[in-house]
Amino acid sequence: MIFAAAEVAGVLTDLFVILLATKIGDEVFRRLGQPAIVGEILAGVIVGPSVLGLVHAGEAVEVFAELGVVFLLFWVGLETRITELAAVGRPAALVGLLGVVLPFGGGYGLGVALDESTATSIFIAAALVATSVGITSAVLVDLGLLGTRAGRTILGAAVVDDILAMILLAVAAGLAAEGGLDASSVLVVLALALTFVAFFALGGTAFMRRRPQILHVPRFSESPLLPAVILCLGLAALAAQIGLAAIIGAFLAGMMVAETKEQHPIEEEVAPLYAFFPPFFFGFIGIELDLGALADPGALALLGGVTALAIVTKLAGAWLGALSLGRGPAAFIAVGMVPRGEVGIIVAGIGRVANVIDDELFAVIVGMSVATTLLVPPVLRLLAPRAAASEESAASGGAPPHPHRR
Amino acid sequence: MIFAAAEVAGVLTDLFVILLATKIGDEVFRRLGQPAIVGEILAGVIVGPSVLGLVHAGEAVEVFAELGVVFLLFWVGLETRITELAAVGRPAALVGLLGVVLPFGGGYGLGVALDESTATSIFIAAALVATSVGITSAVLVDLGLLGTRAGRTILGAAVVDDILAMILLAVAAGLAAEGGLDASSVLVVLALALTFVAFFALGGTAFMRRRPQILHVPRFSESPLLPAVILCLGLAALAAQIGLAAIIGAFLAGMMVAETKEQHPIEEEVAPLYAFFPPFFFGFIGIELDLGALADPGALALLGGVTALAIVTKLAGAWLGALSLGRGPAAFIAVGMVPRGEVGIIVAGIGRVANVIDDELFAVIVGMSVATTLLVPPVLRLLAPRAAASEESAASGGAPPHPHRR
Repeated sequence: MIFAAAEVAGVLTDLFVILLATKIGDEVFRRLGQPAIVGEILAGVIVGPSVLGLVHAGEAVEVFAELGVVFLLFWVGLETRITELAAVGRPAALVGLLGVVLPFGGGYGLGVALDESTATSIFIAAALVATSVGITSAVLVDLGLLGTRAGRTILGAAVVDDILAMILLAVAAGLAAEGGLDASSVLVVLALALTFVAFFALGGTAFMRRRPQILHVPRFSESPLLPAVILCLGLAALAAQIGLAAIIGAFLAGMMVAETKEQHPIEEEVAPLYAFFPPFFFGFIGIELDLGALADPGALALLGGVTALAIVTKLAGAWLGALSLGRGPAAFIAVGMVPRGEVGIIVAGIGRVANVIDDELFAVIVGMSVATTLLVPPVLRLLAPRAAASEESAASGGAPPHPHRR
Repeated sequence: MIFAAAEVAGVLTDLFVILLATKIGDEVFRRLGQPAIVGEILAGVIVGPSVLGLVHAGEAVEVFAELGVVFLLFWVGLETRITELAAVGRPAALVGLLGVVLPFGGGYGLGVALDESTATSIFIAAALVATSVGITSAVLVDLGLLGTRAGRTILGAAVVDDILAMILLAVAAGLAAEGGLDASSVLVVLALALTFVAFFALGGTAFMRRRPQILHVPRFSESPLLPAVILCLGLAALAAQIGLAAIIGAFLAGMMVAETKEQHPIEEEVAPLYAFFPPFFFGFIGIELDLGALADPGALALLGGVTALAIVTKLAGAWLGALSLGRGPAAFIAVGMVPRGEVGIIVAGIGRVANVIDDELFAVIVGMSVATTLLVPPVLRLLAPRAAASEESAASGGAPPHPHRR
């Protein structure tokens, strides 16, 4: 039914409640000197089914959450120059890779220790792998450290580990579906992912650098906003179609558009979309958290164990990968890689549908994502001065925190 | 399932295709010297099930279409001062009222002539009643005539007839549900509607005039954007909850925020949302059009008859109501009231679910909406100079067309 009155009223009310609650959570946490996104996630917990039950995760809320993280990564891409990212390519790749291997091993070991099936163990492992590039970059934007060498390394590593997580997800999904593993389909996912990223990160940015006016066809649009947003949605959709996370496409689109920044007031125009959509993503993570399922001692113990494992393995892997940058930055980078979020929840969600992740395990994985996200920002803030001090390129400084989300 | 990969890819692709297609349709029609929204609607027809079948109207697309018309009316409210609207209150009320009575009578007569049931006849009549305030105001913004006296009269009259249409819809829904009519529930809808509109149009704007800083609480938000958008979503949701069209709430919220315009750069910040969302509304109307159901001669004849009836009755009623403003403006206003759209489609949609409107009749009503919308803009453009010439307050001029949608 189109535009059914009750449905429209329900969706508009959900969106209104989420936006109002996250904005209040944001403000309260700022006044307490705490990171805004923690306030937004907790606001989602409070209005969600766990506490007040004002909002449930329906399709519309999910779509807004997805666009929230898409526009978040588009914004992060806008703040990122491919040359600056390439400059940290080697440590970022190493941080990403080692930051995947250790959590994967730890998660798989935990599954085996819990006497779970191989498929379930691989799903647990895959869900522990991916740093939340959405949450981490929101924290970096908040702290004004996105532009630092350590910030770039975290960002690059998070993209690397998202790609590895997607490949592991393909493996896990293959295992869950067939009971067996199809090596060729894993290779196809890997080849597609690398081609997609290389094509747009290198070719796309080079093209935009040479033809920035493409976003400003005379009379096609007096503002470059819609062409830029169309590019963002297009690459996000394409990434999702080939089995990658949509946010990778959005990030690449942002980096492409960033090459035309001298020509266009593009950030000013994207800023309102960046202010409007991301709160739905953070609120949604809180809404997904099922406190009820975590209430019994067994689940709570499992949550504690999984969270500790997620923190320790990621810290160790990322720290080892970043050591070449010095101890100060390595500690900052390692902590910055700890938050899990959207990709872990996606993996767990797919496992739940495939019946290899039960409701308790799903709640534990979402709980681990929220816990790692809540713990990290204050620590990152403490470590920031030390990381910035040992920053060679401190002169270039971080992008100023944005007025909309600041 | 949360963030299911295939679902995310599908939704992002739909949004991408609609935004790209409407933007191309927009541009092609501008180059042809035709109104942009006609290009956007036809782009929706082309990518929709009628022609290419690239996009279907799923829940996500509908929600974006709804937010499209919500942000459209929020924008129109931002361009509207309550004092200016009150100045045309009397002719606007008369245009609205007479512009409802004649189409209603005509539609009911047609239903009876076609041997339809009383309930079906009332649904047809109610679907013919409401001028599309969304489409009409987009055309007025396009022509830069929203600020003229004739433009204000059309806008006020369209709001009046939306309210009357909602009351008729309550009557029709009552008839369809019970077979009988509950007079008290109709009175409740009427009283709620009038109270809601009067409370926010008068009290709300007076409050904002006196306390404009409410949108700019120190540290709550350095930008007034989110408080303004939260107000918009809140009033839209509230309007929908009490059985009014959500767009009425969005329009009232826009008028409230307009009272603080001197204090805030609010239009600049809302502009990107206004550029992003409304194309989904116009595209959606095209997607809903089912050319297949209109292919047989009987349906085509019915479409012709209903469209002619819709045009003639609205022209006559609105013209009579506007005569006190002079013949030039009256003709302009009468033509401006002809486009039907969202409310007619909502009424027909509810009738279809209640089994009093069949698929053919639904397609005819959507077709009539599209046909009236396509016919009007060129005529309005022809009549505009004449209406503007006889404009006493020509000095105040129209709001300049907005760069984003211009």
